[in-house]
Amino acid sequence: MIMAYARRMQRVQPSAIRELLRLGADPSVISFGGGYPDPALFPVGELGQVFAELLVPERAESLQYTASVGLKLLRTQVAERLSRDGIACTAEDVLIIQGGQQGLDLAGRMMIDPGDVVITENPTFLGALIAFNPCEPRYATVFSDDDGMDTDDLERVLATEPTAKMIYVVPDFANPTGTTLSLPRRRRLVELANEHDVLVVEDTPYRPLRYSGDHLPTVKCLDTEGRVLHLGSFSKILAPGMRLGWAVAEPGILERLSLLKLAADTQSSTLNMAATSAYLARFDLDAHIARSLPVYRHKRDLMLRTMVETFPDGVSWTEPDGGLFTWLTFPQGFDAAAFMAKRLLPKAKVAFVPGATFFPVEQQPQHARVSFSGVPDDRLVRGVTAIGTLLRQV
Amino acid sequence: MIMAYARRMQRVQPSAIRELLRLGADPSVISFGGGYPDPALFPVGELGQVFAELLVPERAESLQYTASVGLKLLRTQVAERLSRDGIACTAEDVLIIQGGQQGLDLAGRMMIDPGDVVITENPTFLGALIAFNPCEPRYATVFSDDDGMDTDDLERVLATEPTAKMIYVVPDFANPTGTTLSLPRRRRLVELANEHDVLVVEDTPYRPLRYSGDHLPTVKCLDTEGRVLHLGSFSKILAPGMRLGWAVAEPGILERLSLLKLAADTQSSTLNMAATSAYLARFDLDAHIARSLPVYRHKRDLMLRTMVETFPDGVSWTEPDGGLFTWLTFPQGFDAAAFMAKRLLPKAKVAFVPGATFFPVEQQPQHARVSFSGVPDDRLVRGVTAIGTLLRQV
Repeated sequence: MIMAYARRMQRVQPSAIRELLRLGADPSVISFGGGYPDPALFPVGELGQVFAELLVPERAESLQYTASVGLKLLRTQVAERLSRDGIACTAEDVLIIQGGQQGLDLAGRMMIDPGDVVITENPTFLGALIAFNPCEPRYATVFSDDDGMDTDDLERVLATEPTAKMIYVVPDFANPTGTTLSLPRRRRLVELANEHDVLVVEDTPYRPLRYSGDHLPTVKCLDTEGRVLHLGSFSKILAPGMRLGWAVAEPGILERLSLLKLAADTQSSTLNMAATSAYLARFDLDAHIARSLPVYRHKRDLMLRTMVETFPDGVSWTEPDGGLFTWLTFPQGFDAAAFMAKRLLPKAKVAFVPGATFFPVEQQPQHARVSFSGVPDDRLVRGVTAIGTLLRQV
Repeated sequence: MIMAYARRMQRVQPSAIRELLRLGADPSVISFGGGYPDPALFPVGELGQVFAELLVPERAESLQYTASVGLKLLRTQVAERLSRDGIACTAEDVLIIQGGQQGLDLAGRMMIDPGDVVITENPTFLGALIAFNPCEPRYATVFSDDDGMDTDDLERVLATEPTAKMIYVVPDFANPTGTTLSLPRRRRLVELANEHDVLVVEDTPYRPLRYSGDHLPTVKCLDTEGRVLHLGSFSKILAPGMRLGWAVAEPGILERLSLLKLAADTQSSTLNMAATSAYLARFDLDAHIARSLPVYRHKRDLMLRTMVETFPDGVSWTEPDGGLFTWLTFPQGFDAAAFMAKRLLPKAKVAFVPGATFFPVEQQPQHARVSFSGVPDDRLVRGVTAIGTLLRQV
């Protein structure tokens, strides 16, 4: 038995996410846990066509190694998509990554020495904490409300944390709260990052999935000093099972991320990159997304309505304009993890994510994240109703 | 512009590998650089069939998230393959990774604190150095000969390096030298690892590709104390563009690697895992490998014969029993990197890997790694002959 692991392993512990991925794979559990897109929306027929076209002897290079930054054509297509979203960039500014999660891992490794401060919303995305933890950061949290990260509080935190290296934010339909960062706060975030020489990691997996309210500019397109690392993903708009996302940043940052990517896994899947590229060339991803919006809007509305109808007084939740999640707040003293483990899972075979693990510093037990995206309507209503019924019993 | 990156970035520098992946993507260059399998061997028809079967609405879960350790069926199939190779294991002992490179990255992060000693052959696989460097190890090298790592020298190094944490070895047809670790040395390696409480990382991407000589047991199957992490890959026997490999180790190690995998990229591609699993179920990978062996044996023999015919006196090379590489040694004082940059590439559009970067501590300029696997016969002969012709001119 090995006795001496690296020190960072003390910070690498079993997490709720892994358990949820397992529960999500169990068909008998109604899981509101993972940030799963609706598999009924996956364009299987179109992807079947592009894979069939690639898997022929003349296209065998689709199965070969390629450049570690990713296929040039796919990088060009991503740059074109981002340019239409206000981020002026070319293929040279794009690194293809193994889903958004790898962007977080690489960003953490690029920036964080042990003890360096990472600033996050409170609560924030658990996957980001899991990615950053091996670098042994200290977390400083900023108060968040319905307009996202409170930049007045951010200013206070930056003033008291001179070793802050990085601000992590999900501006659009945040994980886990579903809230969206307002435009004035986006501008202020960039100003504060400039003043304090920190990197902003803008994580946007849910950005294309807006069901109500007005489209806002990315933080990246407000970036004036090359301090914003923009991360995006095909997971929620095409299919997570291909594990493809992108990182966009100024050349110095992108070069470092590319070197870390090469060290981490050589490159992303050539075949999946080629297939995604061919899909983007032959089909209309925006039209596909447009078709998915009413589906998710309906699911969001159905979930919120079922909560209104079945949840007892004293439970509140956010009303997201997009994305996959709403965030439940139970009465003070309620332990959402115990409720799920002792009642919800054994009695109703329903799962959500207990909220405590989303808090980087002081864990609050009285919250849960529920996703409305990956569950068919009848199971969604049945599962939410079961939560309400069991809540009324406690 | 960001001013303060993490300290580890000083150890993350542009490498020969990235440049080679770029050259490999340039069809006008005859590249003996990358460890590319022959794309003519990729079973594109069979893979086309399994992808077509997966990309139907009833199998949409192939595009969804799954457990971070990988698809259970694929892990079972890998365990069965390894059990036939003498490594008694089940699906629970297998972690699916993003090619062998990710196994090196995760192993480094699991074991290495800054300044910890990693023991390697001399020369050793550049990708391993790239993977370990961000963890800021110190390297100690062991003398190698035609029977691989010299375990007498290893004993000496272990005695003088009390902070050694890990021994990295490619026992079968090593990268870059092509040499194979003898059976007595495999046994002695495990004994020494036990005595000194270090992890052995056994990296076996080329193991199934033996063209001559006798099959030897893995180091893992000689492991008596759960100290060997066995890494393998589908890249050289199926297709690198799907980025799939495996890690096998005792439960404590595998649990830690699994947590690091979750942090790094959530999971490998569900679709590629499902397709590989379906390929293994429907087709005969061993028969496919058996068909590829004469192709590579022929290429090896063709390359070695062309070297005999065209290389000047004073240049020597290894005669590998398998794998993809031979290792050239030029006369003392010859600079292989300058030769490639100033003559071979501009005059003949031929590339190899200058050997200096494979040495972790003291770089020796008078070597080169050449791969015989990924280049068609006519280009192989033309490229090797061009090397010989240009060598005769200097």
